[in-house]
Amino acid sequence: MELLKERILREGKNLGDGILKVDGFINHQVDPFLMDACGQEFARRFNNIGVTKVLTAEISGIAPAVTTALHMGLPVVYARKHKPITMPDQVFLTLTPSHTKGRIVELIISPEYLAGGERVLIIDDFLATGATILGLVRLAQTAGAKIVGIGTLIEKTFEGGRDLLAPLGVPIESLARIEAMEGDRIKFKDD
Amino acid sequence: MELLKERILREGKNLGDGILKVDGFINHQVDPFLMDACGQEFARRFNNIGVTKVLTAEISGIAPAVTTALHMGLPVVYARKHKPITMPDQVFLTLTPSHTKGRIVELIISPEYLAGGERVLIIDDFLATGATILGLVRLAQTAGAKIVGIGTLIEKTFEGGRDLLAPLGVPIESLARIEAMEGDRIKFKDD
Repeated sequence: MELLKERILREGKNLGDGILKVDGFINHQVDPFLMDACGQEFARRFNNIGVTKVLTAEISGIAPAVTTALHMGLPVVYARKHKPITMPDQVFLTLTPSHTKGRIVELIISPEYLAGGERVLIIDDFLATGATILGLVRLAQTAGAKIVGIGTLIEKTFEGGRDLLAPLGVPIESLARIEAMEGDRIKFKDD
Repeated sequence: MELLKERILREGKNLGDGILKVDGFINHQVDPFLMDACGQEFARRFNNIGVTKVLTAEISGIAPAVTTALHMGLPVVYARKHKPITMPDQVFLTLTPSHTKGRIVELIISPEYLAGGERVLIIDDFLATGATILGLVRLAQTAGAKIVGIGTLIEKTFEGGRDLLAPLGVPIESLARIEAMEGDRIKFKDD
């Protein structure tokens, strides 16, 4: 998606160690027009697979997941990383390593909002190692739901997440696929 | 705002101790159409005060803040509760008590995205004691920005947040104002 790729080239910053800083339009400050355009694009790409619910993980997945859900006319659930007091005692919980946090985090979903028979589209900001998304997959499968698609804003193809998720046999769409970052140069896969 | 009040009456749940559960449409599962309608309503109410940036706190403020920013044509910044590795060493940081978490949490904003001269509209899900919003106010003021308005989806008028924020002298708009919750009965202030 050219709009996102241009923005990454203009404002993204390679911090080294595989970390791409996009805090100016996705991860801290959010450009709502860009998120809306990305949501519209996801809705177009996942139009014909019978999605019933959009699933993401707090925190940075929320903005693109909400705009995607808006364009698809569906509810969105965000997995929590800390169990709020409003959640029932029995929950779906999985542990997943967080690359950017350097520790294990919990992902928690209430059974109230993810049920057997749902057809789930996972939306997140990054596809890197795929660990967070695989955590969401485990939660959805435990709930008896079926994963039907995965969409991410930015994929770092050199971190192998796509290979980890390939056995699911569902479409995986990333709006900007980065195959290398060297100094100030960010190289997209389709270039 | 009738749409939100009806939804609270239909799906909100008084858990006692002043806790209103709205996990089915705001805090865990999100209804994107409702959030979009709320964003549109905030944009209408804060149309004429020269806002340059929308500010919220992760996590539950993100959805309504993004839709508000979309309707106002402005960027949105969400204060982080944990400093990500992409953030510079020098940040704006304040401590605030979290009623629902029962502990002190940090609110952090990077100086890169909140500058002197900005005119800030704070959007959040709840106005209860006002502590979180006051934390955002402190951060914005430290950055040299000016708070020009505060909008929340749901206000619990019996927790006093409006009085705490009144000295700011800015418009405070809540789309549903709850003055009492007794058992299954939720009473709105305008009833």
